[in-house]
Amino acid sequence: MTRFMDVHHDMHGITADQLLEAHRADLAIEGEEGVHFERAWADPESGTVYCLSEGPSAEAVMRVHERTGHMADEIHPVPLTV
Amino acid sequence: MTRFMDVHHDMHGITADQLLEAHRADLAIEGEEGVHFERAWADPESGTVYCLSEGPSAEAVMRVHERTGHMADEIHPVPLTV
Repeated sequence: MTRFMDVHHDMHGITADQLLEAHRADLAIEGEEGVHFERAWADPESGTVYCLSEGPSAEAVMRVHERTGHMADEIHPVPLTV
Repeated sequence: MTRFMDVHHDMHGITADQLLEAHRADLAIEGEEGVHFERAWADPESGTVYCLSEGPSAEAVMRVHERTGHMADEIHPVPLTV
């Protein structure tokens, strides 16, 4: 399992409810891809959302986001953490 | 206090020790700026580092990074979290 940070750049005006709804949609199906979304942080003004996850591959993480209708624009493995 | 995510794009090849050293340098002076760095995640291959912090302003967060010699390339307030 690898930890990933993915970034969405076009979420302008996202609300707390919308972030929670998107996160719950990911949680509902993530197990089918062997992924777990840990946390997410959003800046409604710039439209940026960061999602921290663990999964077997970047492709598996992206498939969850694709299936729930919010593809990420970037994804990076982040093997180092402090 | 606001939560911030800042991003460094030019940290290619960063090691676990270097990430820890940079984080500790921030922790050593962050109180002088009223900032707290919570966590950081690094992708040595793409050279990307994400830092999660809390502070009174983006400028205060950036001043800590500047004083410890590793300015961030981007910083976003992330008022929404799940």
